[in-house]
Amino acid sequence: MQRQVTAQLSGLITGPAELLLAIAVADGPARTERLSLTLDGVELVTQEIAAPHGGRLHLVSGVPSGEFAVDYSATVDGIAPIEVPGALDRIEYARPSRYCDSDKLMPVAQAEFAGLAGKALLDAVSSWVGAHLSYVAGSSKPIDGAVDTYLSRQGVCRDYAHLVIALLRGLNVPARLAAVYAPGLDPMDFHAVAEAYVEGAWWVVDATALAPRPSLLRIATGRDAADTAFLSTLSGSLSLTGIEVTATVDELPADDLTLLTALR
Amino acid sequence: MQRQVTAQLSGLITGPAELLLAIAVADGPARTERLSLTLDGVELVTQEIAAPHGGRLHLVSGVPSGEFAVDYSATVDGIAPIEVPGALDRIEYARPSRYCDSDKLMPVAQAEFAGLAGKALLDAVSSWVGAHLSYVAGSSKPIDGAVDTYLSRQGVCRDYAHLVIALLRGLNVPARLAAVYAPGLDPMDFHAVAEAYVEGAWWVVDATALAPRPSLLRIATGRDAADTAFLSTLSGSLSLTGIEVTATVDELPADDLTLLTALR
Amino acid sequence: MQRQVTAQLSGLITGPAELLLAIAVADGPARTERLSLTLDGVELVTQEIAAPHGGRLHLVSGVPSGEFAVDYSATVDGIAPIEVPGALDRIEYARPSRYCDSDKLMPVAQAEFAGLAGKALLDAVSSWVGAHLSYVAGSSKPIDGAVDTYLSRQGVCRDYAHLVIALLRGLNVPARLAAVYAPGLDPMDFHAVAEAYVEGAWWVVDATALAPRPSLLRIATGRDAADTAFLSTLSGSLSLTGIEVTATVDELPADDLTLLTALR
Amino acid sequence: MQRQVTAQLSGLITGPAELLLAIAVADGPARTERLSLTLDGVELVTQEIAAPHGGRLHLVSGVPSGEFAVDYSATVDGIAPIEVPGALDRIEYARPSRYCDSDKLMPVAQAEFAGLAGKALLDAVSSWVGAHLSYVAGSSKPIDGAVDTYLSRQGVCRDYAHLVIALLRGLNVPARLAAVYAPGLDPMDFHAVAEAYVEGAWWVVDATALAPRPSLLRIATGRDAADTAFLSTLSGSLSLTGIEVTATVDELPADDLTLLTALR
Repeated sequence: MQRQVTAQLSGLITGPAELLLAIAVADGPARTERLSLTLDGVELVTQEIAAPHGGRLHLVSGVPSGEFAVDYSATVDGIAPIEVPGALDRIEYARPSRYCDSDKLMPVAQAEFAGLAGKALLDAVSSWVGAHLSYVAGSSKPIDGAVDTYLSRQGVCRDYAHLVIALLRGLNVPARLAAVYAPGLDPMDFHAVAEAYVEGAWWVVDATALAPRPSLLRIATGRDAADTAFLSTLSGSLSLTGIEVTATVDELPADDLTLLTALR
Repeated sequence: MQRQVTAQLSGLITGPAELLLAIAVADGPARTERLSLTLDGVELVTQEIAAPHGGRLHLVSGVPSGEFAVDYSATVDGIAPIEVPGALDRIEYARPSRYCDSDKLMPVAQAEFAGLAGKALLDAVSSWVGAHLSYVAGSSKPIDGAVDTYLSRQGVCRDYAHLVIALLRGLNVPARLAAVYAPGLDPMDFHAVAEAYVEGAWWVVDATALAPRPSLLRIATGRDAADTAFLSTLSGSLSLTGIEVTATVDELPADDLTLLTALR
Repeated sequence: MQRQVTAQLSGLITGPAELLLAIAVADGPARTERLSLTLDGVELVTQEIAAPHGGRLHLVSGVPSGEFAVDYSATVDGIAPIEVPGALDRIEYARPSRYCDSDKLMPVAQAEFAGLAGKALLDAVSSWVGAHLSYVAGSSKPIDGAVDTYLSRQGVCRDYAHLVIALLRGLNVPARLAAVYAPGLDPMDFHAVAEAYVEGAWWVVDATALAPRPSLLRIATGRDAADTAFLSTLSGSLSLTGIEVTATVDELPADDLTLLTALR
Repeated sequence: MQRQVTAQLSGLITGPAELLLAIAVADGPARTERLSLTLDGVELVTQEIAAPHGGRLHLVSGVPSGEFAVDYSATVDGIAPIEVPGALDRIEYARPSRYCDSDKLMPVAQAEFAGLAGKALLDAVSSWVGAHLSYVAGSSKPIDGAVDTYLSRQGVCRDYAHLVIALLRGLNVPARLAAVYAPGLDPMDFHAVAEAYVEGAWWVVDATALAPRPSLLRIATGRDAADTAFLSTLSGSLSLTGIEVTATVDELPADDLTLLTALR
């Protein structure tokens, strides 16, 4: 399987700013890639920082005010080896987090999904979220979490994933968020899916069902969207004016929903 | 400096349960310790799991129903070496978390503490929180976060620390929670303080001012109390019936509030 | 039917305070009653203010600091005439209110009770709330509303009533809160129930099922508990130290749950 | 003073629907007016319902699906007599309501405005809200209340008014919301202001300072925006496609901010 992805961002910085990018594909399969970040047309130096689960962040410090442009492209051949879960994974990803307030949703989760476990539980949660939410662009705010989505019954991919994660954690199932490139997604954009830890490994749960799981390509992984934003500031501020993402695969794979599928 | 600490917990388990303890002192200074966990008087086997920043969790799986008792004691000689912050620390601990909803508090933080930085900012935030909150046992719920505390203006040590952390993160200052043993604390209990990353290192901020900072002894470290609970369940349930903590130091140190002090 | 009720309150006032009592039975059936309010044993003058739906508030102004005691008793013969709903009732009580945040719960209500109306809807909502909540004294805070109760799945009578009301309003059914004396309630206390407007009149919905509906005796009526607190301050502050309520009926009525029952 | 106002609304109804309009000017000064509501060009019959404080609601029942158009115009000569506050006003409007969650904001209000009363308090609250909020169209959701606005520090006129009201109630000052026509407002739209009860009467508080107070013309009055929506459904649903409001006065009055000004 060969996947090709690109991301182009542009906007205005009010500096001095420190920018953090999470757009590079995670370590795993073989890749060739190119990342360029310019301010008013002049190339900036980025520092790569290793993040959990193969993630690769890019940090740019001391950026003055101006127009920035990010241009990223990667060609990825093959698939990642299966991740060996760390000892802390089961513990850390079962905890409530900012946008996955599973401690508040626990009674709901336990009432709704009593008696289910393993793949049957993942299917039930994914189906429930897919059936009860409406995908409505612009319907949620950045500060909204899983409880807000559960109540409003609408959102975008990150909201679907947050609700899946929070419900699973409410049932003591470790779950986390993965930001991904998603060949086949329409309209194309960055995508976010949940990953759940059952039967000793991490499996994709995508209640939006908007793209085949086998060709999803991991960018960043974390407790929720607070850990995976594709562009954020550690100081200064920015306003994004343009964003364009592409993701293709040599042959779009079939997605057999009866199988547990990992992000590779 | 020699510190001696003990913790005794007891309660009822409805199993099969998996328990997680975070009561052992973190790696750092030399220690001798003893940890015993029994169910109906029979010793259980615990697995030690390394957690961030020297933390040491103890996991017990497959626990049937019964009365459990935890007995921990440690003698710690000397102080820990100064922690070298990891590359991700500045990034990860600036993000909002479950009980430190800094994204919601950012406008408040920026209005209240505009123009301050470094130690002056830590002092201002600590003083503000200390002055505006009332320490009221039982005034908060486990699901309460920094916004709730900010509004209600009361809480216990974890609430003080959460609010300090959320305000600091709202100003782009990385901040995290440390669960500690606290010689001099009255009434004695587990204690929680904030740590803030300024001037290249982590420093204690304790808006409760209830115990001297130099003799605080780290147990667990994380984004907020979701990461540092002294006793939690990964499955099954428990009800705590008894808890007793002691923490002493050979000589209670003076706490010079004009200094930045690290947790060691 | 003859009902006898008493209420005794005591506490400390930090004055100058203005106190509002809502403990007198509402206008309707014939009654004899006695209300006494003393400060440090000296009788205070109360002003009666007519409130919606027959409610009778008692206001005491300019109260200095001291120990107050309230002593109320009433004997009520017969039942109230059926209330003729006002033109605004249907409109006003369909709106969201402080503790009945029906705008947030609307999607949940519509998903859960689609297709039901009239008495079948009242029965379904009452059964759902009764089955999904646990009655746990002290489990809720005064600031908690229907969404909080919906999520936590526990509460006391006011929480049950708030959730019933919010779910009904989320389905465009007008609903309101009634504070009542409740013969047969165990343990005896002030009670709160929902009233719903269907089939042209107001009917009791009590998801707690803790007392027979036909002998409930109305005190105050409003959008939620903000309108019906038995004792509140318009200025100054008070701490309640004692409260004792009794409510008896000459013959405890049967409660035929197949019938719509009004508060009379 | 002569004021002329118009409101034109259009949209799509999915019926059978029951619509409620709150666009007619409140009873008070002499007026001539015209209200027309059509569905697919055919005039519908509206029922006028008296609402508190002179408000006049218009209800239309049994509306089938189609395109509706509302056309309202009024010419108002002179000003309303001063309102005589009812005995319940001081009590009812001091309570927390759906979008004015004053019980949550009370500690903040008391810390921020300690020691102030009367006109000085109104000025302080109005100035604080005006200075700390940014007027940003589209920044708030319909479910947002005063706490949300307090935290986010942005909103539109209803959010400004809700925050003013909640802060005042948190200080035991009765406060309510008035929907008004506002000559001089730019861009022209329906407007919302707070009214506060001090010195025995109701006075306008408009922290947006977007229009002169003396020529504001009351439409509806209530606890918050839940009571004053210009168009809502009691059943069925609608989507608004057009809204145009005008409000003029023969001579735009000066607004002397040193005076307490009533809505007349």
